[in-house]
Amino acid sequence: MTEIEKKRHSLAHLLAAATLKLYPDTKVTLGPHIENGFYYDMDFTKPINDSDLKKIQKTMKKMANSWTSFDGKTVSPDEAREFFVDNEYKLELIEEIEAKGEDITLYTSGDFTDLCRGGHVENFKEDVAMDAFKLDRVAGAYWRGDENNKMLTRVYGLAFDTKEELDEYLRLREEAKKRDHRKIGKELGLFTFSEKVGPGLPLFTPKGTKIRNLVTEKISSIQSQYGYEQVCIPHITKSDLYKTSGHWDKYKDDLFHVKGKSDAEFVMKPMNCPHHTQIFDAEPRSYRDLPLRYAETTMVYRDEQAGELMGLSRVRSISQDDGHIFCTPEQIKQEVNNIVSIIKEFYTAMNMFNDGDYWVSLSVRDSQDLDKYIGDDNLWDKAESILEDIAQENNLNYKRVEGEAAFYGPKLDFQFRDALGREWQLGTAQLDFVQPARFELEYTDHEGHKQTPVMIHRAIAGSLERFMSLAIEHFAGHFPLWLAPLQIAVIPIKSDIHNDYATSVYESLKESGARVELWNDDKDGFGKKVRRAKNEKLPYWIIIGDEEVNSQTLTIENKDGGEKGIPPAQFIEDIKKDLD
Amino acid sequence: MTEIEKKRHSLAHLLAAATLKLYPDTKVTLGPHIENGFYYDMDFTKPINDSDLKKIQKTMKKMANSWTSFDGKTVSPDEAREFFVDNEYKLELIEEIEAKGEDITLYTSGDFTDLCRGGHVENFKEDVAMDAFKLDRVAGAYWRGDENNKMLTRVYGLAFDTKEELDEYLRLREEAKKRDHRKIGKELGLFTFSEKVGPGLPLFTPKGTKIRNLVTEKISSIQSQYGYEQVCIPHITKSDLYKTSGHWDKYKDDLFHVKGKSDAEFVMKPMNCPHHTQIFDAEPRSYRDLPLRYAETTMVYRDEQAGELMGLSRVRSISQDDGHIFCTPEQIKQEVNNIVSIIKEFYTAMNMFNDGDYWVSLSVRDSQDLDKYIGDDNLWDKAESILEDIAQENNLNYKRVEGEAAFYGPKLDFQFRDALGREWQLGTAQLDFVQPARFELEYTDHEGHKQTPVMIHRAIAGSLERFMSLAIEHFAGHFPLWLAPLQIAVIPIKSDIHNDYATSVYESLKESGARVELWNDDKDGFGKKVRRAKNEKLPYWIIIGDEEVNSQTLTIENKDGGEKGIPPAQFIEDIKKDLD
Repeated sequence: MTEIEKKRHSLAHLLAAATLKLYPDTKVTLGPHIENGFYYDMDFTKPINDSDLKKIQKTMKKMANSWTSFDGKTVSPDEAREFFVDNEYKLELIEEIEAKGEDITLYTSGDFTDLCRGGHVENFKEDVAMDAFKLDRVAGAYWRGDENNKMLTRVYGLAFDTKEELDEYLRLREEAKKRDHRKIGKELGLFTFSEKVGPGLPLFTPKGTKIRNLVTEKISSIQSQYGYEQVCIPHITKSDLYKTSGHWDKYKDDLFHVKGKSDAEFVMKPMNCPHHTQIFDAEPRSYRDLPLRYAETTMVYRDEQAGELMGLSRVRSISQDDGHIFCTPEQIKQEVNNIVSIIKEFYTAMNMFNDGDYWVSLSVRDSQDLDKYIGDDNLWDKAESILEDIAQENNLNYKRVEGEAAFYGPKLDFQFRDALGREWQLGTAQLDFVQPARFELEYTDHEGHKQTPVMIHRAIAGSLERFMSLAIEHFAGHFPLWLAPLQIAVIPIKSDIHNDYATSVYESLKESGARVELWNDDKDGFGKKVRRAKNEKLPYWIIIGDEEVNSQTLTIENKDGGEKGIPPAQFIEDIKKDLD
Repeated sequence: MTEIEKKRHSLAHLLAAATLKLYPDTKVTLGPHIENGFYYDMDFTKPINDSDLKKIQKTMKKMANSWTSFDGKTVSPDEAREFFVDNEYKLELIEEIEAKGEDITLYTSGDFTDLCRGGHVENFKEDVAMDAFKLDRVAGAYWRGDENNKMLTRVYGLAFDTKEELDEYLRLREEAKKRDHRKIGKELGLFTFSEKVGPGLPLFTPKGTKIRNLVTEKISSIQSQYGYEQVCIPHITKSDLYKTSGHWDKYKDDLFHVKGKSDAEFVMKPMNCPHHTQIFDAEPRSYRDLPLRYAETTMVYRDEQAGELMGLSRVRSISQDDGHIFCTPEQIKQEVNNIVSIIKEFYTAMNMFNDGDYWVSLSVRDSQDLDKYIGDDNLWDKAESILEDIAQENNLNYKRVEGEAAFYGPKLDFQFRDALGREWQLGTAQLDFVQPARFELEYTDHEGHKQTPVMIHRAIAGSLERFMSLAIEHFAGHFPLWLAPLQIAVIPIKSDIHNDYATSVYESLKESGARVELWNDDKDGFGKKVRRAKNEKLPYWIIIGDEEVNSQTLTIENKDGGEKGIPPAQFIEDIKKDLD
């Protein structure tokens, strides 16, 4: 247990003790440390709620003064049972520990004793900053997570080493709420859900679809330089495909099953690789045809539990910018290098590839458990060292993570850190030594012998839905210029007298390829239009009044302020530069 | 019955008579006229096959000399039963006619008498050209089409007014076989099917996907000028959506049903309109927002019987270039006019909009049965006359077809005739007065009142799969230049000495935006490369040898021949002109 984990766990004890002081009939059950804090599940005789937390927290702080040590002692099962005679939850736990033949330990601090495996601070008063924790909220939780058991009350607490860390955490959480992609997505009109269509199945409006298409086109235009070709597959397949690929046994319960009039068993595809092998396999292949690089942005379907769905970040219809390369072992290095280049270029365009924005997990075998990986050992060794060479030669900020390889091959996973400090796994390059063999794919080598190709799975943005939720929250809705569905609004102050100049400005912007609208409808006033431009988080809006008409210049505004007196030609030039 | 139908039906009698002469134990059953000819279903004691048809045909021609009239007489059920006492099929028919209380008629020509409703030529010898018919083939057919009944032998015959017509039909049929899109599609490597994925679910290769994308992009670039915006929807939905739209009762048996872990009943979408209504309905709409024009090329799924699937022309995963407009009644004319413009522009680019290439069905209500149409009568009247105005003003080759309107609105259906004389219904514009009301869609009009918008369904290419099968067969694989996945191959005669010039030609063609490849791999000889260019039906291939290098010109070849001495700049100019 790390030091901070010990602090959090100790605070869980303190929470239980303070609660018992205030509500003596409560039965305390389990209280572990968790990410950012701790919780304790308790059985109250009368329900409490968030407004009661202040009182409990105050009591915790008072009691902390007398918690100068944590003293553990091992007891017999009967002693333990006697101590917890009125608490059926603890009795159940004692039973379990006894059955496993493990020691039963009790820890005491102040006048509170708990059944516990240990892991505490030495001296509560000295080791824990009392202003660095905060009781957070109350939630329901079934005893042992089983919905057949009694619903208990879970009290969550936050805890850090310092007050500054707690404050920063609270600030980021508040910011995350403001940036919630569900909220901003609605304000910007990017997507919608319909009760009639069902949960987890987003429908993208023209603006949201524009963003999806811009992302797809950007990736497409980058990767086409590396010889990727588009393919197109149906969204269903007979289950036979996954029985051959080996996915069936593992994933059949997480699939959507499809039934028609006939007896055939169809499923919706949860991934695209097995379909793509069938395109490879449609013709005899020679080493001269390789590498073949198939790319496709297409939806896959996974039967996520309704309770786990959230906005665009967890959906049932997932648009993948997927790609599969079929190549010889000698071509692995060049192809993975190309994937790294595509990822670099794309995330640079997103302004997300600066130092500190990302790190790369070089996911290799668990050296203690080599048996669980399938494929030739030499090929694995070589592939892992190729991936490491690539990471070094590309100067990637990488970490070698043992045991993170898939059973079918090693991989490079790109982890991006967003403006709120959260990590997202997005781009990936995964070698696969297994699927080509299962599908009996082959090519003829220089000497006329049949060989099995290597397959490389790759994604650049990953799931477009997840990527979009990240982009909305990372940029707080202020997308990079090239990604904004609407880039510029031209707003004449008075529709009648400023309209001619506004129209000519609009026309030349349109001509230059910008996504621009002329807002000269006189039903809305000028102020309302500017508010709309701000609300829609446009990269720019252009104000045109007397001054601008007279000087034939523009006033350009954006979220950070405005500038007067810009000649139209200069603005167009600036826009073009930004887009390049 | 038309004259040609009477001839065909009379020939069916003659076929039965000739068969009975040659195989006296045969039981004849039913023999109607059909498109291009006739058939007769018969119960043979010993099976016959195609090689027996010549003998039967010869006998028919001989017997025809004595068939100088068709004499009908009405008989009582018992008389009929006595006549057909050994033929259980005819007895069953007699039973049915008797049950309906209809007259039973027998027709005799030569020495053959058949149970028949009539519809014959007067004098066989004079009215039917004996060289304008031909027995075609033998097939199995269940009695009354019911698979629980006995399998009979169906003999098909072709019959036309003149020998020339018969020959032309046979020529076109032979040509259709050569142009079969399944054969050419395989030769060109455009798509494939996989047993593991399942029947009716094509997988498109890079080349086939290129064609799909070029069609989609062409339509997209045309329609974006008319204000269409792309949207994006998932491929599944809860069944609730179709219960509201009204499709459920009608189509639920032809859908693919989707089942996950939860109880919700999902289906794969067989159309996109109900999803698109949900995007319209995501926000309050004002008359100032209308028209809204949503476009999307997306797959829909229909559970076609495996036996009915055929290549790309009948599939289970159908890519529709779909579009839906939500507008006020006053906007119908402008919007349908725009659809007609898009269709015109697209099919002109396909070189399929010349006179005689198409006709338009103006599909209106059945004036005898107005009750079966839903929606306001005045709106219907107005809409039908708007569509007719549009057809006239656009100088469309149109026919008013009563009774062909959908129950929800009138439509314009574009029917294209291919190089083999077959008709394909492709582009369409359909008004819909029903769905917006069922989904309770509304907008606020000028006066602040809630109104129901009109919905217009439209497609330009229709199903991309079907369109592709048509295009392959219509052009026999020789696509228009803009639609060819690979437009030009540059072929140096000797890779070593002609490669530099070939490369520079290739580079400048690539620069100009052409889809071009340089075939300078010396594993294949020159002759093999030219054969490949022909087999792949490239629009152009460029030969580069000593002569071309010395004169710095090109030899350009295509399917129709070749031309020497073309300067590269001129060829690029020609290509560009063709593409514009």
